[in-house]
This record gives sequence, C-alpha cells and structure tokens, in this order.
Amino acid sequence: MHKRLKLGMVGGGQGAFIGAVHRIAARIDDEFELVAGALSSNPDNARKSAAQLGISPERAYTDFSEMAKAEAAREDGIDAVSIVTPNHMHFPVAKAFLEQNINVICDKPLTSSLDEAKQLQDIAANSEAEFVLTHNYSGYPMVREARHLVQSGALGALRRINVEYVQDWLSIPINDPDNKQATWRADPKRAGKGGAIADIGTHALQLANFITEQHPAKVAADLTSFVEGRLVDDDAHMLMRYPDGAKGYLWASQVAPGNENSLRIQIYGENAGLTWAQENPNQLWFSPLNAPKQLLTRGGHGTSNLSRDITRVPPGHPEGYLEGFATIYREAADIIRNGRMQSCLLPTLEEGLFGMKFIHAAIQSSENDATWTQI
Amino acid sequence: MHKRLKLGMVGGGQGAFIGAVHRIAARIDDEFELVAGALSSNPDNARKSAAQLGISPERAYTDFSEMAKAEAAREDGIDAVSIVTPNHMHFPVAKAFLEQNINVICDKPLTSSLDEAKQLQDIAANSEAEFVLTHNYSGYPMVREARHLVQSGALGALRRINVEYVQDWLSIPINDPDNKQATWRADPKRAGKGGAIADIGTHALQLANFITEQHPAKVAADLTSFVEGRLVDDDAHMLMRYPDGAKGYLWASQVAPGNENSLRIQIYGENAGLTWAQENPNQLWFSPLNAPKQLLTRGGHGTSNLSRDITRVPPGHPEGYLEGFATIYREAADIIRNGRMQSCLLPTLEEGLFGMKFIHAAIQSSENDATWTQI
Amino acid sequence: MHKRLKLGMVGGGQGAFIGAVHRIAARIDDEFELVAGALSSNPDNARKSAAQLGISPERAYTDFSEMAKAEAAREDGIDAVSIVTPNHMHFPVAKAFLEQNINVICDKPLTSSLDEAKQLQDIAANSEAEFVLTHNYSGYPMVREARHLVQSGALGALRRINVEYVQDWLSIPINDPDNKQATWRADPKRAGKGGAIADIGTHALQLANFITEQHPAKVAADLTSFVEGRLVDDDAHMLMRYPDGAKGYLWASQVAPGNENSLRIQIYGENAGLTWAQENPNQLWFSPLNAPKQLLTRGGHGTSNLSRDITRVPPGHPEGYLEGFATIYREAADIIRNGRMQSCLLPTLEEGLFGMKFIHAAIQSSENDATWTQI
Amino acid sequence: MHKRLKLGMVGGGQGAFIGAVHRIAARIDDEFELVAGALSSNPDNARKSAAQLGISPERAYTDFSEMAKAEAAREDGIDAVSIVTPNHMHFPVAKAFLEQNINVICDKPLTSSLDEAKQLQDIAANSEAEFVLTHNYSGYPMVREARHLVQSGALGALRRINVEYVQDWLSIPINDPDNKQATWRADPKRAGKGGAIADIGTHALQLANFITEQHPAKVAADLTSFVEGRLVDDDAHMLMRYPDGAKGYLWASQVAPGNENSLRIQIYGENAGLTWAQENPNQLWFSPLNAPKQLLTRGGHGTSNLSRDITRVPPGHPEGYLEGFATIYREAADIIRNGRMQSCLLPTLEEGLFGMKFIHAAIQSSENDATWTQI
Repeated sequence: MHKRLKLGMVGGGQGAFIGAVHRIAARIDDEFELVAGALSSNPDNARKSAAQLGISPERAYTDFSEMAKAEAAREDGIDAVSIVTPNHMHFPVAKAFLEQNINVICDKPLTSSLDEAKQLQDIAANSEAEFVLTHNYSGYPMVREARHLVQSGALGALRRINVEYVQDWLSIPINDPDNKQATWRADPKRAGKGGAIADIGTHALQLANFITEQHPAKVAADLTSFVEGRLVDDDAHMLMRYPDGAKGYLWASQVAPGNENSLRIQIYGENAGLTWAQENPNQLWFSPLNAPKQLLTRGGHGTSNLSRDITRVPPGHPEGYLEGFATIYREAADIIRNGRMQSCLLPTLEEGLFGMKFIHAAIQSSENDATWTQI
Repeated sequence: MHKRLKLGMVGGGQGAFIGAVHRIAARIDDEFELVAGALSSNPDNARKSAAQLGISPERAYTDFSEMAKAEAAREDGIDAVSIVTPNHMHFPVAKAFLEQNINVICDKPLTSSLDEAKQLQDIAANSEAEFVLTHNYSGYPMVREARHLVQSGALGALRRINVEYVQDWLSIPINDPDNKQATWRADPKRAGKGGAIADIGTHALQLANFITEQHPAKVAADLTSFVEGRLVDDDAHMLMRYPDGAKGYLWASQVAPGNENSLRIQIYGENAGLTWAQENPNQLWFSPLNAPKQLLTRGGHGTSNLSRDITRVPPGHPEGYLEGFATIYREAADIIRNGRMQSCLLPTLEEGLFGMKFIHAAIQSSENDATWTQI
Repeated sequence: MHKRLKLGMVGGGQGAFIGAVHRIAARIDDEFELVAGALSSNPDNARKSAAQLGISPERAYTDFSEMAKAEAAREDGIDAVSIVTPNHMHFPVAKAFLEQNINVICDKPLTSSLDEAKQLQDIAANSEAEFVLTHNYSGYPMVREARHLVQSGALGALRRINVEYVQDWLSIPINDPDNKQATWRADPKRAGKGGAIADIGTHALQLANFITEQHPAKVAADLTSFVEGRLVDDDAHMLMRYPDGAKGYLWASQVAPGNENSLRIQIYGENAGLTWAQENPNQLWFSPLNAPKQLLTRGGHGTSNLSRDITRVPPGHPEGYLEGFATIYREAADIIRNGRMQSCLLPTLEEGLFGMKFIHAAIQSSENDATWTQI
Repeated sequence: MHKRLKLGMVGGGQGAFIGAVHRIAARIDDEFELVAGALSSNPDNARKSAAQLGISPERAYTDFSEMAKAEAAREDGIDAVSIVTPNHMHFPVAKAFLEQNINVICDKPLTSSLDEAKQLQDIAANSEAEFVLTHNYSGYPMVREARHLVQSGALGALRRINVEYVQDWLSIPINDPDNKQATWRADPKRAGKGGAIADIGTHALQLANFITEQHPAKVAADLTSFVEGRLVDDDAHMLMRYPDGAKGYLWASQVAPGNENSLRIQIYGENAGLTWAQENPNQLWFSPLNAPKQLLTRGGHGTSNLSRDITRVPPGHPEGYLEGFATIYREAADIIRNGRMQSCLLPTLEEGLFGMKFIHAAIQSSENDATWTQI
C-alpha cells in the first residue's frame, strides 16, 4: 500500500513564488503530503496560508524553531522539511531541523555566506538526517542525457564548457516594496553579497558541474551593477579553468532585454559537442565530429535510461520546469526512505558548499580586477 | 480551509498511459484526491493498481457499474469520476455514473460511435451531474492566448484555418499484444471506425474550433491505411469549409517519420496570422500584416489574462503537457463546486458530439472519394 | 581560355524584378555576358535600360521579333535568350527565338495557357535550339540533396508528399498601377487564368516533382479569391494522389500574414522523412525511422556530391536564392555548349507543360467543387 | 552607358578559396571586370589560372611587383587590385600597389604583424589610392539594420556586447600539405602569431565594432592551443571593457564540434536587445524591454533604408555570404569612382589597424595570464 511522506515547509506563504513551485513539485509524483508549515514570519500570513493549503491549525506554526521541536516530538511528525525562505534564513532554519534529525530539502544557494555554509556542513555531519539541495535544473531529463553522453565518453576529453543564465527583469530599478522577489534579492543582508552571481550564476555553475562531473579550479571574474543604485551585481561574467585542462566561461545577467530564463550550456570535447537550453528543455543537440548534428528528444530514439527513467509522458509531449523540480522531490523521497545510494544524482550539501566557494571566489576576483582566483 | 474533491477513476491500471496522466493532472493544483477506482477489467490488476495508488481496498472495485452504485450510496462518495478506458468503454461507463448523478471527466473521443454519442447527450441532459471532456490541448496557456487574439479581432475576418497532428509511431505494423496503446487503437471494435482521424484528428479539430470559435460546415476527406493489414486509417487529410467563408485543412497522420506529437495550427485573417505548435507550447507567433512578427511567450509581455490566469511559473520556465492537462482538472473542480459558468472554457459534451459527427463525416466523405460532406 | 556565352534578354527593363535576378544569376559563375536585349515594350525604357546595363545601342532592340531575326543574322549573335516578361509573352517570344534556332532560357510558368504550352512543345521539337525553364528552386543544393535521399532509397516507398508556398503580399487589394509586380499578376489577360496556383503553386509542384521524381495523377482542388474584386485565385489548396500510391497536398496562398516566401516541403516514406524550407535553404532535416533526427547542412558532413557539386562557399556560409538561380544558368551554359546530358537536372519544357496541365486540372477541379480531376 | 572598373588580383589561383569568393563578389553587381592577375607564386599555376579566368596572357603576371608597375604604366591599367593571399603577403603586395597609386581591396586581417600594419598606414597616407578592407560581414543587410537600431537609440546606452565566431574544422590536427587553407593558417610565419584570434576573432571584433560604433578599450584574454603540436591558438576567449562602460566577451574557436561558421552577436542596452547570427543572416531579433520580441527580416516590415538599400531580392528569398561580400565590392566601386564619402560604411585601413592592435593585445594579455591589457 502506497504511503506518502509527511512534509513540512518553512517560508512559501502568500506572495512567495518558489514555495508554490516546491509544493507542486512535491505533489506531482505523489510521494509527499504537506502537513505542517511555518509559512511566513508574519503570523497572520502564516495562519492564512496554512489554512489555504489544508494544513491543520495546530501544525500552522509562526516560528520555525518551535516547529522543528514540536514536529520532532510528535509521533506523526514530518519526515522532511522544505526550506523556501530568502537566502539569509537557509542557515538558521536548516540548522534547527538538522539538529532535530529532520531531513532537509533546501532551496539554493546553500546559505548567504561561505562561513555559514561551512558551519552547516559540520552540523549536517553530526545529524542523522539527510540534506538535499534543490538545484532543480539537474532534474531535466535531457540534462541527465547530456551527463550520460559526457560520461559515456562520446565527447572525448572536454575542451570547452560554456554556460550562461540570462534574464532581463532587473534591467530597470525595482523599488516597489511589494515586489518581494525583487526586493530581497537586491538586499545584501537577505540575499548575501552576490546578486546575479548567487541567484542565477550558481544555477549555471551547478548545471555545468552536474553534466561534466568536473568543477572549475579558478575564475577570472568581472561583476557589474549596471543599474544605478543597485547594491549587488546584476551581471557577472568570468573565464574559468578546469583541473584537467578544459576552459570555459560563465555569464549570468539580469539586465539583458529579450531574455526570460535563458539558461544555456554548450560543451565541446575532442570528439563531439552538445548544447542544451532550458527554455526548450525537451531537446538536446548532439554533434559528433565529422557527422551530421543530431537532435535528441526526451524519450526519443537514441536516448538512454538516465533520461528515460525520469520521463513521465511520451516523446513530443513537452515536460517543463515543474516536472524537473518534481524529479528532485521524487529522488529526495527515495533518499528519505532508503538512504542516499551511490547512484543518486541529487545535489549534495557539498555541491552547495562548492557553489558558495564559487560565489566567494568570483566576488574576490572581481574586486581584484579579474585576477585568477582559486575556488 | 482547503478541502479536496474526492475523485474516482475507471481504467488507468498498470500498463496504461493516459490514466497516469490524469492522476498527475488532478494532483498538480491539489483540487482532487483519488479515493476510489475500477482501474482494470482484470481483477488482479485492478486490486494491485489500487494498492499502489493508495486507494483503500474497499474502494478498489473490479466492476465500474458496481462502483457507480456503491460510491453513489456512500456518504463520502466520490465527487467525480475520471474515465480513462479505451474508446468503446467511454459510453457505458459515462452512462453508469451520469445515471447516479456523479460528475464525469471523460477522455476523448466522446464515444466510439456517433450513435452512442447522441444517446449520451440525452443521458447527460437528464442527469444532475456535470460532464467534462478532457481535450487537454485547450488547457495550454498560449492556446488560450491565441483564442484571445482571434476573439479580440486582431486577425480580422478569418480566411484560413490549417491544423495538423502528426506522429510516426505507427509507421510499421505493431503486432506486439503487450503494446496496449497500439493494439486497442488499431482495433475498430475498441477504438471505433476511425484510426488517426479519431485518435489525433479530433484533437486537431477541437484545437482549431477552440481557438477560432468556429466549426467547419463540411469536409472533403481522403483517409488512408498505409500500413498493410491495418483495419483503420493511419493518415487522414481533408479540405474544410467554414460557414463564414474561411477555408482550411486538417491533416492527421501516424506514419510520418520524424514526428512525435507534432500538433500545429496556423490561422490567417485579413489583418494578421498566428501559429502555435504543441511541441514548444510556451511560444505563440503573432504576425500583424505589414509589421514585424512577434514572438509571444507564456506569461510574457503583451499577453492577456486569458493565458496569464492559468500560468503557474514565471515566463521562460517552460510549462508542458501535464500543466495544460492540470488546467482542465482545475477548471473541472470549479465546475463541480460552482456549476458551469458562462466564462468557462472547458470542452462540453456538445463539443465531443461535434467531434463524433466530424469523424463520421470524414469517413463518409472518404468512402465517397472525397466528396464534400456536411458535418 | 575561358570564353563567355553571349546572352540576350527579353523583358527585364527598369522597374522589373525578375530580370535583374536573371542577370545576376547569369553573371555569378561567369558563363554569360549580356550583349543584347529587348528589355521593354516601351522604347524609351528599352533604350535607357540597355544603356544602364552596358548593352551597345545597336543591340538595344524595342521589338523582340526584330531582335530574334537580327541576332540570328549576326556572326556574333547571341547564344541564348532569357525571357523574363509577364506570362502571356512567354509563348510568342519563345516561339520567335526557337524558330531562329536560338536557345531559350524562360521564366516559369511555361505559358499563360495549356493550349499555348502544347504548341510550344511542337515548336521546340522542330527547333535545333535547347529550351530551359528556370524553376530556380531546383538549383538549391539541399533540394538536390533531398532528391538524392529519395533516389537512394533512404526513405523507402513514399507515402506523403506535402508542399506549400505561402506569401502575404496580396492580403489587401493592390490597385497601385505603379506596382508592376502586382498588376500584371492580377490580370488574367497577362498572367493567365491562374493566380496563386500559377504564380507560386507551380513552383511548389515542380519542387515536389523534382525531389520525388513522381508526378501527381489527379487533384481535388479548392481555389479561392479571398480579396474582394480579385479576378484570379489568391489561395489554392488541393489533395493530390500519385500513381504509386503516395498522397499529398499542395497549398499556395498569397494572403497569409507573416509569410514572405515560405516554400516548404515535407516528404514521408516507409523508412524516413525529410523537410526543407526555402527561407533557410542551407539546412535539410532527415529523419530516419526509429533514430534521432539529423540536420544536414549544405556542404556539411553526410551530404552527397549531388549537392556538393553546386556549392560555392564553405559550410556555414549561407548561399541563397541568387546562387540557386545561378546554378540553373551554369547548367544551362553546359547544355548550350555540350547538349543536354542524361544526368542534367534542369527542368525541361515537358516539365513546364506538366505544370500547365496541373494549373488547368486544378482550376477545372475547383470549378467542379473539388472533384478529383486527372492532370 | 555603364562602364565596368578594371580589376586585378594577387593570389587566388587554383586551390585557393577566398580568391574565388572575391571574384564572384566583384561580378554580382557588375561593377568590375577582372583583366589582370598575379594569381599564384607558382608561375605555372598563375598562367593556368589566368587562362581559366579569361585573363589575356600578357596580363597574367607571375610577380606582383612587376604587375603593379606594368599595370600602372598601361593606359588601360587596372583601377583596383584585390589582395587575396595568405596574411604575410598582404603588406608587401598592398605596399607595391599603393606606391603605384593603384586602389587596393585587401582581405583581412590587415597584415601579419602590428608593425607592418603601422607602416602600411603611413604608406597609404602618402598614396593617392584608396584602401578597402573586406570585412565582408558588415555587408550583410541585417548587420546594417542592427547598426541602424543602435545608432537610432533604440537600445539606449549599451551594457553588454557579446560576440563569438565558432568553427570545428581544426578539432583534429591537419597535417595534409595539400590542404592549403589549413597549412598556411597554422604556420605563424605566414599567418602571423595569432591563430583563431586572427583568422576569425578579428571578424567577430569588427562585426561588434561595426554595429555598435564602439571599440573595446582593454581585454583580459585566455588563448589556447587545444590540439597538440599546434603552434598558434585554436581557441581564444576574452573579457572586454569599453570606454563608455559597456562590457563584453569575444570567443573565437576552431575546435567546437557542430559549428561550421557560427558567427553570432548579442547586444544589450538599457532599453532593448538584439541578436544576429551569420548562418541565418536574413533575420534579426529585436527585443524592446517590456514588449514582445520582434523578428525583423531582410527587406521586411519595420526595417530601414540602411538595410533595404543593399538588398537585391524580395523578403523571404534568402541572400547569403556572397551577396554580403558583393556589397563590399559595390561600395568599393563607389569609392573608386567618387572618393570615400562620409556616409560610406566600408571598413577602413584604420579599422584594420585596430584589428591588429587587438590581436597584439589579446596575445599579450594571454601571455600575462589574462591580465587586463590596453588595445
């Protein structure tokens, strides 16, 4: 008999964006039911949001540490908590639940500073609970297929890894305090020192790391705040060097008109190249040297089980952002039930820590006029 | 406090495709919980499938008419039933539940014959229950946006309505009895007399009807079974004429290599044209006469509330097939709770009946060497 | 030592479009030099245009029959004449030059009526001169590659042949008498009875015939004049049947906003499909059944000599309309120098005659309410 | 009466690529006739190639300096010479003809070293002749349209200028001495110190400079020779900074499988963005902030005279590489006849000199571990 895992959530009340995404993602494969939440730091919003979501009043908390303790104490306490707050709250919330040995599913970036990230690593090491970071783009089937192609040796030794994540929504100053998405992201106290580099640059980095199973060793970065008065970068561009000789670039921008969520990656090896773009995620171009380009499609001919296993509908019926996110939740459920297997592809806390080191190195490099900086 | 509707399902046991789609679609917006089912005509499969889905054993039926009666008798009986069987079972199942005044959400095509469809219309007229047909493509936001553009007069009087739904999976004979999808669709006893025309042609027709709010008056159709031994058409092509002077074509094929689920529509009016393709559904081309073409994106600049209201994630994050399907379920929930409003865009039984007349007319025209035939 | 052929031209004076295209096409491969012309029926325009093109005054004729005689009489007379007049003048001009045994390079359609076309066939049969019809789209390298794929058996037996040529420039009435392109095309006396069917439908037909080496046996056609007051069709759509069992459609329209010169073809066989579009002519999609789609590029990997032999610049550097047209002239030069070889791919007068029969049949079918009509 | 200019050519004998391109480009608009040449340093090849091209034997030179003197001495001497040799010969040949006051049309890059480039500037300043550099990509109509959009202020102040030119043909070592294109480009003595940076990077740079009318002030560059044993870079990537605050990147690579001649540019300003790609050059994306993206087409609605004036065929009929190149020749003819006008858009020797400084700075930066280096 199918039994759902019990899920709690911190953050994600009315007016939030990513909380709703996590909830849909958790529902799609029917592995979780939401039973508890501290959905807002505003008590009214917390209660109202909980009612709307069918959470019973006694489990509608207004304080996350109280929630951690209360849920740990219940016989029917939550199996996992989803953290969907602004960045600066990731650390204290994760700490509170890990210390109660409650599994954590946390939005990226890991924390708002490298120092917190390192502390969190220690805390997690001493907890019996699992930690999952929702770098959702690694849940797209054709991203998995790209990883498979690299892993299989189809590209040969890698030479170039180019990745970009480009938006336009911050092209003009956003001063409307009602725009929660814009305001906390623009505030270094809540988002951390990085702007575009942290918000979307880490997604781009993780995508490249996930597909190639390589991590850049150093960066020469040029970060800019193009919009006057902005306190964090809205454009970040860098050269990257990899330990095994590959080179690459990462460009993250929020001021490029005509781009919505243009996350794109190109990888070139000795024998083949591949390109993938998030806005049309069911396709993957594979270009073997000296042969015609091939357009691989999700579930289509010539694809492997690594992508097929996480496909829900037939080829030609598009899956999107929510399905990729749902795969993260499906695999998180598997970790929670069975422990983290060798074969598990979910981002770890260590991957999140690397992301924080990357942000740190990029900012430092930029402050030193784009000098090469070790990550 | 949020309260989910109780859903039952007929069909959709292990090995079925569309049942799983309906279940995910029903979960995405959290309006339904699945509590009962007659998931297979095979009792073992029915029980096993129910357990896997968390349905309690006492509501795991092996007979749909028993289920209709039992659920109608329960205090906590289902609010609606989803019918996801092969075509020939749509009629008896829908009849059984409508007669118990249980709301019906039915997969397309309406029935396997025009005669049944007409009977069903009478039955529904005498039932207190609502009937919803899951022509899911009308749940795509940019399909709604296309309808809005036509409705707003941006295209002027329509001249051409061209629609096609093209696949390749039946390019060769499929004789494997384990391929349930292929076998029942190829069997006139279970699928009805139409092959491609019924399975995908009706989707194409409904898409065109939905966007244009026009219905073709007559067709000149040429249906073919290209694969030897096939008993139903695998390719259907026709000229269409509309009452107000527009002309069009519809092409449905399952033998066109390189096409997965290539449902595409082009509509041309006096003042503008538009095109949309299901495989990249978050985009809509709008081409005003004597001005540059515009690429409208889901949730993007220049779009209307008709599409924005059913959008779940920000522009540039793709939504897909399941989200479109989920919109049908979200709106079905609204009908079930509040009755069918004037503004409701869900396909009605009448639309399903028109689809059956269309299949009938197309087959008749083809048998008469593509003579114009009234629908 | 390289020696250019001497070329004359009838039509193509100032204000004409296609004449300039022919002249550039004739120059690109340096096989012709323009030395004589009757460039306009208006003597002033004829003289002025000739001077602009560097034609010496004594060979700037104002009458095409005078030109035919005078050039035939000169020792250094022209090797070939290009006919670039409105359709109704194709016949008398071609006749005049063929009767003087001067090679003819004639724009399409062959003539403005089927009767003239048949007469021209007899005249050509009795002339020593060669006749070349400039169906320029067969000069695109990737069209040749498509023909090669069909010929090689890569597609297997053909099932569907779908071709369309779609424009929007006649979406509104064009009454400006200075728009020469629009006025003569809209006048049945100069263009013939067919509008879109003759002007662009014949191009679409010839493209399909050229690639498949098959000719449709009959059509069921629906022709429309959407714009009020127009005397010829501006939209033509038809079902087609081929002798060997393939089926297809042809759609030609000049009233579809957002289309410039959207000539596209899809061909599907038992084993593979292909698609090509004129607006991006350096690419050809090839889709083998049960394998990933391939994007073939002009001169790129996996292409054959049939396309490579007529390629001028490296892959990735686009060739366009003029280069395709130039290939027709290059091959015409070869015919003029060496006679028509078996391997020659240039459209013949017979192909032009078939085009006229096709127009005739389509109009007849449409007048009979889309009854199947033999071509 | 139309009178062609007399053209000579140095380089471009049998087996060469770019010489044939220049000759077609010179013919397309009928402004030049080729009458003299020193087509190869190999006398046999020089003579044979000349005969094939219809050059009379007395003007088929085997030595370029002899040719310069002889042509200068003839009454009917050439009006201009095209230099299409490997890079190291650009300087001596240009010098020889400029000193004879014969107009020079020279392939890029200007010379094989910065020092030569500066000398050439002095020589040209003392010559009565004009100097034109064939950066042919600035001859594409939609590149002109992009320049128009920037110039018109539609983008506002520029923020990002990203350009890349990517190929794959040097992904493996090319040791075949018969491959002239590969061998001289890989030889620093003939190509200069730069590999990809000089061969294609300068094209990318000039494209960006041409459209934006801005020049980068400094670069931080990382150049690599990925293929073992290669003496010049085959991949070059750099950050760029512009005097007015814009930032950008340039990536040139010849080792990226799946890329033929993928020259692409993205430009983002405060108010809009644009993107253009050489492989589909008849389109230009224009993305005003907070409005739908527009697809501008060559000659299409919403385009300006800057692009329309150099368009030869109607919208939807593609023009390509040769037509863009032909525009350079057409405008060179205008300069030769009338002197260089203010409005002339052809690249000057100064632009070529800037290109050489750019190569020099990029190599220097790369040798200093990607330190910012003034151009």
